[in-house]
Amino acid sequence: RSSARETAARVAAGGVARAALARLVPDLRITGYMVQMGPHAIDRARFDWEEIARNPFWAPDAEAAGAWAERLDELRKTGNSVGAVVEVTARGVPAGLGAPVYAKLDAELAGAMMSINAVKGVEIGAGMDAATLTGADNADEIRMGNDGPRYLSNRAGGVLGGITTGQDVVVRFAVKPTSSILQPRRSITRTGEEVEIVTRGRHDPCVGIRAVPVGEAMMACVLLDHLLLDRAQTGGARGPVG
Amino acid sequence: RSSARETAARVAAGGVARAALARLVPDLRITGYMVQMGPHAIDRARFDWEEIARNPFWAPDAEAAGAWAERLDELRKTGNSVGAVVEVTARGVPAGLGAPVYAKLDAELAGAMMSINAVKGVEIGAGMDAATLTGADNADEIRMGNDGPRYLSNRAGGVLGGITTGQDVVVRFAVKPTSSILQPRRSITRTGEEVEIVTRGRHDPCVGIRAVPVGEAMMACVLLDHLLLDRAQTGGARGPVG
Amino acid sequence: RSSARETAARVAAGGVARAALARLVPDLRITGYMVQMGPHAIDRARFDWEEIARNPFWAPDAEAAGAWAERLDELRKTGNSVGAVVEVTARGVPAGLGAPVYAKLDAELAGAMMSINAVKGVEIGAGMDAATLTGADNADEIRMGNDGPRYLSNRAGGVLGGITTGQDVVVRFAVKPTSSILQPRRSITRTGEEVEIVTRGRHDPCVGIRAVPVGEAMMACVLLDHLLLDRAQTGGARGPVG
Amino acid sequence: RSSARETAARVAAGGVARAALARLVPDLRITGYMVQMGPHAIDRARFDWEEIARNPFWAPDAEAAGAWAERLDELRKTGNSVGAVVEVTARGVPAGLGAPVYAKLDAELAGAMMSINAVKGVEIGAGMDAATLTGADNADEIRMGNDGPRYLSNRAGGVLGGITTGQDVVVRFAVKPTSSILQPRRSITRTGEEVEIVTRGRHDPCVGIRAVPVGEAMMACVLLDHLLLDRAQTGGARGPVG
Repeated sequence: RSSARETAARVAAGGVARAALARLVPDLRITGYMVQMGPHAIDRARFDWEEIARNPFWAPDAEAAGAWAERLDELRKTGNSVGAVVEVTARGVPAGLGAPVYAKLDAELAGAMMSINAVKGVEIGAGMDAATLTGADNADEIRMGNDGPRYLSNRAGGVLGGITTGQDVVVRFAVKPTSSILQPRRSITRTGEEVEIVTRGRHDPCVGIRAVPVGEAMMACVLLDHLLLDRAQTGGARGPVG
Repeated sequence: RSSARETAARVAAGGVARAALARLVPDLRITGYMVQMGPHAIDRARFDWEEIARNPFWAPDAEAAGAWAERLDELRKTGNSVGAVVEVTARGVPAGLGAPVYAKLDAELAGAMMSINAVKGVEIGAGMDAATLTGADNADEIRMGNDGPRYLSNRAGGVLGGITTGQDVVVRFAVKPTSSILQPRRSITRTGEEVEIVTRGRHDPCVGIRAVPVGEAMMACVLLDHLLLDRAQTGGARGPVG
Repeated sequence: RSSARETAARVAAGGVARAALARLVPDLRITGYMVQMGPHAIDRARFDWEEIARNPFWAPDAEAAGAWAERLDELRKTGNSVGAVVEVTARGVPAGLGAPVYAKLDAELAGAMMSINAVKGVEIGAGMDAATLTGADNADEIRMGNDGPRYLSNRAGGVLGGITTGQDVVVRFAVKPTSSILQPRRSITRTGEEVEIVTRGRHDPCVGIRAVPVGEAMMACVLLDHLLLDRAQTGGARGPVG
Repeated sequence: RSSARETAARVAAGGVARAALARLVPDLRITGYMVQMGPHAIDRARFDWEEIARNPFWAPDAEAAGAWAERLDELRKTGNSVGAVVEVTARGVPAGLGAPVYAKLDAELAGAMMSINAVKGVEIGAGMDAATLTGADNADEIRMGNDGPRYLSNRAGGVLGGITTGQDVVVRFAVKPTSSILQPRRSITRTGEEVEIVTRGRHDPCVGIRAVPVGEAMMACVLLDHLLLDRAQTGGARGPVG
């Protein structure tokens, strides 16, 4: 059966992938962080890349981290658990990675993230909210900046038609709350007897926190796969857009 | 480059898959429908399977269909477009399909749905909302019914640990609004000149509607793949849970 | 770099495959044996299945085994080595395994056997000799026997058009002599200096002998793959021909 | 069922592969030719690359071509057919293509050639004859020439341990005689009735001739696959050995 213990192997593979990426695309940076715990989301206005490594939640918003710490203590006391949303951003991704029909980059990222234990939803760029937008609002407009083309927004999350645009690749995924809780839940035995289940042993009130490095690892593996495919085709000529 | 014209091939493949599924699992029914257009969602209290085929939006809620029709007329007049959320439900799926590490059913469904043109988010069961729940609320409790085990909810969307539970498999995906709109958007030319783009020709204000049969086709293909893998392993012994 | 040490993993995988095959096709028997050492071939008129396990060469011909033993002693004394031909026969293979274009059974067997270290040639049925025959001589004619159809010969080696016929599947492969010998051979160093190489350490005058269980393992793995594919398609209805 | 009509698609794919190879490795030349028809082999002492395109058998030996023409007329008159051996040589292959365990170049070449309709045996370099040699005779010795390392023989056929050595890659395969002949052969009907079969219609006395361009196509496809894999790994730095 499935167990999150296997994610250790994913993080190891991600480490190898990141070492290879560091040589092939030195400017590539893959960063995962938590943007929501239960119903409490970070405030994007306070987003700070430096903050991520400073708190135990990989939160880019120090205030949110403080609030989450309190909430987590309550959950621990009541033996309950809570879900989370993790976001992984890859900056410095060359434009042109991916493919238009088979092996689309967004499809492979979605499969990779959904394969992480306890994940129930995956979003790229605007994600599920893309459904609420009009075409006029959803368009990522482009102007010329001093260093070449400049997108005015990134609702596409760096992928259009299965291929990277040169913008940041932004993926989010929802991690459900641990099912192993101390509050009794109704279930049945193999023979059909009705019982109440309480899971004793190590209690982990928010597994979403542990999913952050796993999400980074999956991003690294998928990007390296596509970078190698691209090198085979182009001999490694991809660079930044513009 | 990517074009939604290729989805014709997906629907054709889905037709073959559904014919095979009909012989192997006669009770399996795969149904797609739209649950949201722009910010306007259906009312789940009015959900009616019979209604889906009666309106041009594949909406299971007649009132929502009426409201969407009006909204679509406005969008057509202003040359704008809008996103949508499509849900695909597979009823009568045998328990035990999928795998615990590689080829997890939810991972393959996510990849398949995200590969559909214009899709930016994929959810299974509670989806992104799973992040907001506590473990106590998220648990799908089980009691014994007259016909065997009966789940009291389906937040898992029919898949746990990569493997079907025998509950309905429920997948949702967000389709972004068409980028081909008559309202001018800022872009640049190949040589870096700043321009405003208007896409003339056939204008499609909500491509989400057309994505409904494509989503059904992808569900059929993924389920058949796993049913065949299961037959190889078990000789075809899977039946309903309980 | 390549090393025959990895064949231990192949034999282990073959053991798992044989255990699965034993449950799915109880009458299937996979037997490997040496049919040639250097230029000395067995006499097919003396072929005896029982003899194979009785001598250290897996030879089905006791006289050949005796001659090979003497020859091997000479080679050991002179620090030389010799090649061999190994044959693997699978008896009781259901008809209908394989595929007509992709994943042809003979193509996969050839790839599997050629992937064994030191193998330089692979034959199925009549093999390279098929080139010398006329169509009239090559045809495997069929008559009705008491237990159903009876082939009068097996030049096809049990595979026609990529699919098993129900006859024995017969594969042969040539193993080149070990390159690690005590007789000096001319070579160069990395910097281009001309040298003579002698390989000291454990000397193995005929690695073909060790390739027998490896060939059996590859046959088991390929047959199980195709049996599982067939079960997926047919639900496991394959039986003996007729 | 299997039909050699599908080889048209292989030759088309080979054409695309050769176009890509021509850009990536301009000095690479892939040449197929027949070296044996029935029991009549070419004389290697008369081998002439220029002769191959001059006769309808792709024979590198003009005398053999003449003898084969006479033999073919007899076979046509008697409604019989004959087998053949085709050799495909790739000159100018960079050293280092292939892999040591999975995706060994020789294993993939063997699978590719055996997948051609009517092929029953595949050899690389010395092939089945490698079994008859001693280690001293089989070694391809190396000396320094004016332009770098120079092999004194090519019994390895350009592949050692699954990886190219920079020598010519030499693959041979046996094509069995057509089974569709005018001489009656014994068979049975579906219901088990004993009959004699004669195949009327277009009679092709030596399909081996038609297999020459198919073998070239398979060589091109396999080499391009490995060249692209190598470019992904190395960025395209492979050149000639030395």
